[in-house]
Amino acid sequence: MKILKQHRTIRRYTAREISDALLESILESGIRASTTGNIQVYSVIVTRDEEMKERLAPCHFNQPMVQEAPVVLTFCADFNRFNKWCRQRDAEPGYDNFLSFVTAAIDALLVAQNVCVAAENEGLGICYLGTTTYMAEQIIDILELPSGVVPVTTVTLGYPAEQPPLNDRLPLEAVVHQERYSDYSAEDIDMFYEEKEAFDSSKQFVEENGLKTLAQVFTKVRYKKEDNITFSNKLLAVLKKQGFMNQ
Amino acid sequence: MKILKQHRTIRRYTAREISDALLESILESGIRASTTGNIQVYSVIVTRDEEMKERLAPCHFNQPMVQEAPVVLTFCADFNRFNKWCRQRDAEPGYDNFLSFVTAAIDALLVAQNVCVAAENEGLGICYLGTTTYMAEQIIDILELPSGVVPVTTVTLGYPAEQPPLNDRLPLEAVVHQERYSDYSAEDIDMFYEEKEAFDSSKQFVEENGLKTLAQVFTKVRYKKEDNITFSNKLLAVLKKQGFMNQ
Repeated sequence: MKILKQHRTIRRYTAREISDALLESILESGIRASTTGNIQVYSVIVTRDEEMKERLAPCHFNQPMVQEAPVVLTFCADFNRFNKWCRQRDAEPGYDNFLSFVTAAIDALLVAQNVCVAAENEGLGICYLGTTTYMAEQIIDILELPSGVVPVTTVTLGYPAEQPPLNDRLPLEAVVHQERYSDYSAEDIDMFYEEKEAFDSSKQFVEENGLKTLAQVFTKVRYKKEDNITFSNKLLAVLKKQGFMNQ
Repeated sequence: MKILKQHRTIRRYTAREISDALLESILESGIRASTTGNIQVYSVIVTRDEEMKERLAPCHFNQPMVQEAPVVLTFCADFNRFNKWCRQRDAEPGYDNFLSFVTAAIDALLVAQNVCVAAENEGLGICYLGTTTYMAEQIIDILELPSGVVPVTTVTLGYPAEQPPLNDRLPLEAVVHQERYSDYSAEDIDMFYEEKEAFDSSKQFVEENGLKTLAQVFTKVRYKKEDNITFSNKLLAVLKKQGFMNQ
């Protein structure tokens, strides 16, 4: 499928606005995604306002696309609306637990990916911001998310001002298993990561950081253990604060 | 976008097989999805074998599509492969924590939705099985998933033997917020849920269960608090067992 196969992350956007009608049509496609029991336990927050983008930017480590993109979408796990409906209909909701968070996060993520496919089909470029789960607490404050709502991912949207090459992917057999998980031998690992390690850009990363291997760029620079621990504890505290840890 | 807008969950399949070439092409499209830092921390387990489907069926509460579908795909958060690569390259991975699980689950879910869009584009029907997170422990045993790997969703795939009507969705303004979360008034809730409550099928659910409201069908029958608590604790235990709770 051409749209899917041509996906590349777009981080630079032109000044061209996205019309309300186009955004609405993309979101309408997005919400056709499957959802648990058709209960739609997610919300999408649309950010277009410059001041709001400026406030969100530090939550995304000031990556420039947040302020450059005409539209920023924050996808949230959301049981607040459903809980209100239950309470208003003489039904006592039992969705203040970890499973319910995971259920709602899955709903939100399937919609996010559908929105991205729909946007790319309309000629827009997208970029996912993984920083959302690191900085959920600050995003909750800025977007005024109530109890029962947790942001899980953010997507910037705009008309592309760059056309980067397709990103590499591991060979399909590296990520797909037949019938049972076939664990990786040392030779498998060498074979599957060989292409990625051989890129000039990979070698440059290693050299610029004064390291020995590409894997060290991830463990020592990009996704460090101490940061992961800090953000794990912050995220678990957010789940508790937003009412998802009563089990 | 036609493919997205026409999505309906397909639970009945014809006996027609899915060729290896078609499945490979769909999975190739799937893995073009965005992934955190392009590290692809997910795996997909393909189930075609009848005996394996029979073993998986109880994990999905014996919903008949698991055994009827020619292909069952289990999408897993997977740091095992990446951790092995790191260790083999003199890099100490720090991905045994909750944030890393969430990162990997997001990767897996974006790929899952891409696979579903690609499959529907080829005329296949899909059904997500939310039971995966409830029964992760049993699925881990059956699919022989090692430490660092947790199943997050399952999709059944096959040629449709039914053409159900489009499912209802809440109005777009019920799930989309402009700039800030706009919390719901009692009138908003009445308005947004009015259509869903008015369906004959909804009224039938309420009546068959001897209940008063549609919301009670969810809280008292489909997604009960006591089940959610049980499955929350099981899932947290699975995360611990699979090595994702060291923070």
